Amino acid sequence: MLWIRWELLLMASICWQRGHTDNHGATKSLGHVTVVIVGGTGDLARKYLWQGFFQLYADQVGKGHTFSFYGGALSTTEKGTPLLFDILKELACPAELSVERCALVKDQFLHLSKYHQLKTTEDYENLSQQIKQQLGQEGIIEAGRLFYLSVPAFAYADIAEKINNTCRPPSEAWLRVVLEKPFGHNLYSAQALDKKLSGQLKEEEMYRIDHYLGKQVVSKILPFRKENKKLLDPIWNKHHIERIEIVLKETLDAKGRIQFYDQYGVIRDVLQNHLTEVMTLMLMNLPANLSNSEEILQNKLNFLASLQHVDNSNAVVGQYQAYNGEVQEELNKTKDYFSLTPTFAGVVIHVDNAQYEGIPIFMTSGKALDERVSYARVLFKSNVFCVQDPNNVQCKSKQIIFYLGHGTLQYPAILLSKNLFKPELVSSGDWKEVTEYKDVNVLGLQLSDYYIQSPVTPREAYCELISHVFFGRKDSFISAEGLLASWEFWTPLLEGLSRVFPRVYPGGVDNGNLLNFQLKGHQVAFSHEALVNVINPGAEDNFQVMQGKYRSSEMVSAWAQELVERLASDLLLAAEEAIREEGQFHLALSGGSSPVALLRALALNLYTFPWRNTHIWQVDERCVPHTESGSNFRSIHDLLLQHIRIPYFNIHPMPVHLTQRLCVEEDGGPTLYEKEIKKHVNGSSFHYILLGVGQDGHTASLFQDTKLENDEENLVILTESPNKPHQRMSLTFTAINRARRVGVLIMGKSKHELVSQLSRIKGESSKYPITKVQPKSGTLIWYIDYDALLG
Amino acid sequence: MLWIRWELLLMASICWQRGHTDNHGATKSLGHVTVVIVGGTGDLARKYLWQGFFQLYADQVGKGHTFSFYGGALSTTEKGTPLLFDILKELACPAELSVERCALVKDQFLHLSKYHQLKTTEDYENLSQQIKQQLGQEGIIEAGRLFYLSVPAFAYADIAEKINNTCRPPSEAWLRVVLEKPFGHNLYSAQALDKKLSGQLKEEEMYRIDHYLGKQVVSKILPFRKENKKLLDPIWNKHHIERIEIVLKETLDAKGRIQFYDQYGVIRDVLQNHLTEVMTLMLMNLPANLSNSEEILQNKLNFLASLQHVDNSNAVVGQYQAYNGEVQEELNKTKDYFSLTPTFAGVVIHVDNAQYEGIPIFMTSGKALDERVSYARVLFKSNVFCVQDPNNVQCKSKQIIFYLGHGTLQYPAILLSKNLFKPELVSSGDWKEVTEYKDVNVLGLQLSDYYIQSPVTPREAYCELISHVFFGRKDSFISAEGLLASWEFWTPLLEGLSRVFPRVYPGGVDNGNLLNFQLKGHQVAFSHEALVNVINPGAEDNFQVMQGKYRSSEMVSAWAQELVERLASDLLLAAEEAIREEGQFHLALSGGSSPVALLRALALNLYTFPWRNTHIWQVDERCVPHTESGSNFRSIHDLLLQHIRIPYFNIHPMPVHLTQRLCVEEDGGPTLYEKEIKKHVNGSSFHYILLGVGQDGHTASLFQDTKLENDEENLVILTESPNKPHQRMSLTFTAINRARRVGVLIMGKSKHELVSQLSRIKGESSKYPITKVQPKSGTLIWYIDYDALLG
Repeated sequence: MLWIRWELLLMASICWQRGHTDNHGATKSLGHVTVVIVGGTGDLARKYLWQGFFQLYADQVGKGHTFSFYGGALSTTEKGTPLLFDILKELACPAELSVERCALVKDQFLHLSKYHQLKTTEDYENLSQQIKQQLGQEGIIEAGRLFYLSVPAFAYADIAEKINNTCRPPSEAWLRVVLEKPFGHNLYSAQALDKKLSGQLKEEEMYRIDHYLGKQVVSKILPFRKENKKLLDPIWNKHHIERIEIVLKETLDAKGRIQFYDQYGVIRDVLQNHLTEVMTLMLMNLPANLSNSEEILQNKLNFLASLQHVDNSNAVVGQYQAYNGEVQEELNKTKDYFSLTPTFAGVVIHVDNAQYEGIPIFMTSGKALDERVSYARVLFKSNVFCVQDPNNVQCKSKQIIFYLGHGTLQYPAILLSKNLFKPELVSSGDWKEVTEYKDVNVLGLQLSDYYIQSPVTPREAYCELISHVFFGRKDSFISAEGLLASWEFWTPLLEGLSRVFPRVYPGGVDNGNLLNFQLKGHQVAFSHEALVNVINPGAEDNFQVMQGKYRSSEMVSAWAQELVERLASDLLLAAEEAIREEGQFHLALSGGSSPVALLRALALNLYTFPWRNTHIWQVDERCVPHTESGSNFRSIHDLLLQHIRIPYFNIHPMPVHLTQRLCVEEDGGPTLYEKEIKKHVNGSSFHYILLGVGQDGHTASLFQDTKLENDEENLVILTESPNKPHQRMSLTFTAINRARRVGVLIMGKSKHELVSQLSRIKGESSKYPITKVQPKSGTLIWYIDYDALLG
Repeated sequence: MLWIRWELLLMASICWQRGHTDNHGATKSLGHVTVVIVGGTGDLARKYLWQGFFQLYADQVGKGHTFSFYGGALSTTEKGTPLLFDILKELACPAELSVERCALVKDQFLHLSKYHQLKTTEDYENLSQQIKQQLGQEGIIEAGRLFYLSVPAFAYADIAEKINNTCRPPSEAWLRVVLEKPFGHNLYSAQALDKKLSGQLKEEEMYRIDHYLGKQVVSKILPFRKENKKLLDPIWNKHHIERIEIVLKETLDAKGRIQFYDQYGVIRDVLQNHLTEVMTLMLMNLPANLSNSEEILQNKLNFLASLQHVDNSNAVVGQYQAYNGEVQEELNKTKDYFSLTPTFAGVVIHVDNAQYEGIPIFMTSGKALDERVSYARVLFKSNVFCVQDPNNVQCKSKQIIFYLGHGTLQYPAILLSKNLFKPELVSSGDWKEVTEYKDVNVLGLQLSDYYIQSPVTPREAYCELISHVFFGRKDSFISAEGLLASWEFWTPLLEGLSRVFPRVYPGGVDNGNLLNFQLKGHQVAFSHEALVNVINPGAEDNFQVMQGKYRSSEMVSAWAQELVERLASDLLLAAEEAIREEGQFHLALSGGSSPVALLRALALNLYTFPWRNTHIWQVDERCVPHTESGSNFRSIHDLLLQHIRIPYFNIHPMPVHLTQRLCVEEDGGPTLYEKEIKKHVNGSSFHYILLGVGQDGHTASLFQDTKLENDEENLVILTESPNKPHQRMSLTFTAINRARRVGVLIMGKSKHELVSQLSRIKGESSKYPITKVQPKSGTLIWYIDYDALLG
């Protein structure tokens, strides 16, 4: 076969990309590009890939590059060749081409395309030889090789190795290997895959496709934000945005694809990648330069890092009713087999930064729903007060919608309700303003209530992305770092959900309101009781709070979450009482792991906590700078103080780091803290001291070996911990036992042994410092979760 | 006339108040009550008061008290008596009374009622004599005297004096004097009036009526909140409430009442009192005890104190088109006279506490609008994501409405949308649940979408309040403190508006969308350009920002607000640049008055400011504790730090108060601060230092006499100010001149002289320390407002 260069005969100007033409029509050889679709006779290749490469060819022919195309697969050449040509002859003509021209280009494309068996290392070697030989014969230099891996993900590593070992182009030419999701199953498998691949291919050689990034509306999000920056900046924040919805609804089910689907489910299939990318583009900091891939990547990573942790409490999942039967059938399972794979998920995500905090981001997708539609919507708070004339356009809801297609609108577009502002039309000529309004309702407004921008020519995402691979536009692809960051965000939820029974839904319009879900704080739940619950995992546990006695004091016990909520609300009562009586509430908090959940609850759920009149003290501190992550103060700061509005003056960190060094005697840190306590706290008697207990029975930073000779006089001392960092500062038992209320929080199975032992000891035991907590005139309450209590 | 005690004949059980009956029907004399309506033949008395007292009488007769009623006015007895009896004979029968019984009670009431001239001191003396004499004759003890002052407010002080001097009951009986708004015209006149009145009457003797507090729905707000506390608590906060609307719309105009109305306008007439009371009841902390007037008062005061300052930028005002003609006519003004009195106002109020911050409270009232309606509405954020079935009740808007009457509903009620919760029916039997749903739309929902509670029997507010006066229920009245607190809140706005031309509106449905208004940050503006602008105060000033040179450096000048906005946005740019390059932004802020507006702008308007990576330093500090109001840090804290989310570790207050005392040499404060600067700030070179200038030319706390011998070495020193407090800590010129950027902000006419002088001085002048600000390699920019620049 000769590389027939008909390019000179053609003056293609099909695609929108600006190619490398010096003078229109004049050609300068830019070298040869070899395209290899591994899995070139598969479904995706048939549907999108060949069409995309045909479009690329039609666009690039005559602009300086020459091309050849290989479809590779496991079959022999005899078997594979007819399969490939069956696909190729069905290729559709790009709309921009005249019939004759298309016939010409297509004929040429068929000549340049060839089937090649790609099974063994030798096959790859052989392919490489063939390329070199052909080019050598014609005296054409090689520009690059593009491998499109349209094969199951488990084959990636193997193929990458073969390409690396046998099929690399000469060093002056580029190698680009295109991969498609799934990129792993969770963070760990994604890391493992990444490690394997990065042993064979450089990061810049890998093009991980998320075809959503090739959708015209998605790739317009950043330019749209940039063009309209001036008008968006004032409203693109928590003060104006009421909610964000990122939605992909499908009417299709998973039938026939269960083999794949059941391993993944809707979150891995859609949310972790497509919808996360859309969210990121909408909310990441706008890069100063839209063509700076590195800046874009950095901003994406920063955004993903600012997401609040999500777990089961932030998600609802469902499974369409027929799914389990399909699983039993396609996976050859017995009739008592139940798959927990969700086909529907609704997740609420919050961003933990000053710009977006508090805005709920509803991300949702499902199969077998009532309609096919995909959009991302920013709904703004209404800032209008309509004294009269509430039907005025100003009084309607304000929103910006990135509409990806289908639904009532039927075409991709960016919609802005007219009461927001008239957007700039993104400069390049490939988008247009739509002013013909069909009589349809799109997300609550009539079409005529919107300014509408839409692409002049609809383009397939794959066509777009294939061209981006050709032009090396890495910002349209998923970076290794971005991929891992996304998995890092989603993996804890996926792990949590692996044990959750999805709500079963009938499918289609019959779902009614069954899948609607709603916020409760930052958590979500289905809005309605399930009508049908085919899978019933047994009666719900009864999460009641139990009260009793422990070591002759009051004890409250419950499952961890209820226990923490109870403690938080007891703290609120104590605070209200103290403030009623004295105008202030003095609260001393311990370090360690126990209070984490409590501090979160205080920060996020107790809106009415009177922080303005609360003083926060420390029970103990490690001798490390407050800014370090091991510092107790740091953790109180990050979990609580950063989220509430408390006067600076009411925060009393232990002075472990004074003028000299950490916790040195000369600095007199304990004396200083004692002075501060005496100055602010009436009778040095805290209103509430919250303690934890170590497995060894220590509390505060008072250990078995801590010398307490001066304890009677001192409120604060330096101590030595058996664990690192050894140096500590701590309140003494004298200070603790002066408190009006002392709460001891014990949680987790690891404390069960200790809880049992302590219950058998009467009075003090020098072995267990916690036994010395005996408030003189105050109250001691034990908060022990069922895990710690019952083991 | 004899006090005919027919009470024994009657077994009245009309009103809902539980009276003082020992045994039903058995009477024990509780003494005699004399009611005096001063202005007893006036409009209000005719419409409401006599009816209220008749109801009181009908309710109380036979329960132990005896009564007599006087209508007093300026006319002679001959003239007044028939006027009074014209009113009395028209009294309507209370619905609960049978026809015969009513005839009996009414006849009795007429016998007990009498006209009495009340003009001179002698008239009052004479009245008092008459009461004593009559009671003496019958041997009845006096329980109390109730004076209802239904006269123009200017007469209050005089009448109070007369009552005090001549008409007090014997010491064992009570005196209650009922007053009606207007209670002053602004804070100062209210204070003056209060002073005058409190010279004559004790606070517990004064019953200031706001008839809104007598409306059944309004008086149910606190009990409703209390009964539903458990369900409301989680949602009664900024996380759930989207907006609050407090609305009183009237169709009536002010015609015929211009004499009164034009002095007051809609804000004084309605917002300062009625609507403020409603807002307070909705948002004040719920008292532990609903019958504890003192606790209620304290909570009201706390709430009013937490309101953010409102000024012209938070309000829009209008005037119906015919108003000005009515003014010209009724006040005998010429045709070129224009009244600025607003007949419509929309105000947006924000609460400055953690529970409600950020919730816009739209308070609005107007005459000549399209409908008559009055309500207070809490609209919640939607927390539901409707995957399908958006017409489901769960997907509709969530709201609680305290509906005072009229409008589409036509009766007073409390409405809760059914997707919230089913409210407790407030215990006492006088409220009922309504379950018959008329086909009407109330604020966006069908009636059937609500749970509805309504009073069993509608009651006039005056009837209710008159009974509360009788029972001494002070919590239904306005306290002096509450009144002054409300005036304190409204007075600055009223002063500001006194120079604002209201938007003219045609009146009625023709107003269309002309009065709709909308938020921009915390400010508001009409949503639409005025179509008609009869009063055109001349072209708007052109608020452009000007750039130029001053003392050979760059200068930015504008009107104060624009200048501050420009400086804030320049700071944002500087911060973004620094963070891009170094990951951190070090900003040093001055004390004094100039930065106040800037700090406000930074706190409230610049949502995207990267606080998390910003460090705040001080340029100078007064040697007072940081918590005191004179402290620069305190003002930075209150204006800025409290409102933003900045890590605790990034805040660097000047250590003026160390272990020993304030700013003593031994403490080494300056050295310590210098160390901290060197530790955090690269090359001790701040990214931005913001300075002000005193009228004497000082900057930071560097004065004409400040000795600067060591200035070359030191970054921080102690200095002496000519003004109190004398001791200061300050950055030195060495520190200042190392900064990358220095901004000097000068505002106000009082600085004009200095600005002129400085412009004439070249280089340094020992007289003006500010001239020593000459950044070595950084930039100096002067921000001077037009007042300071142009005088």
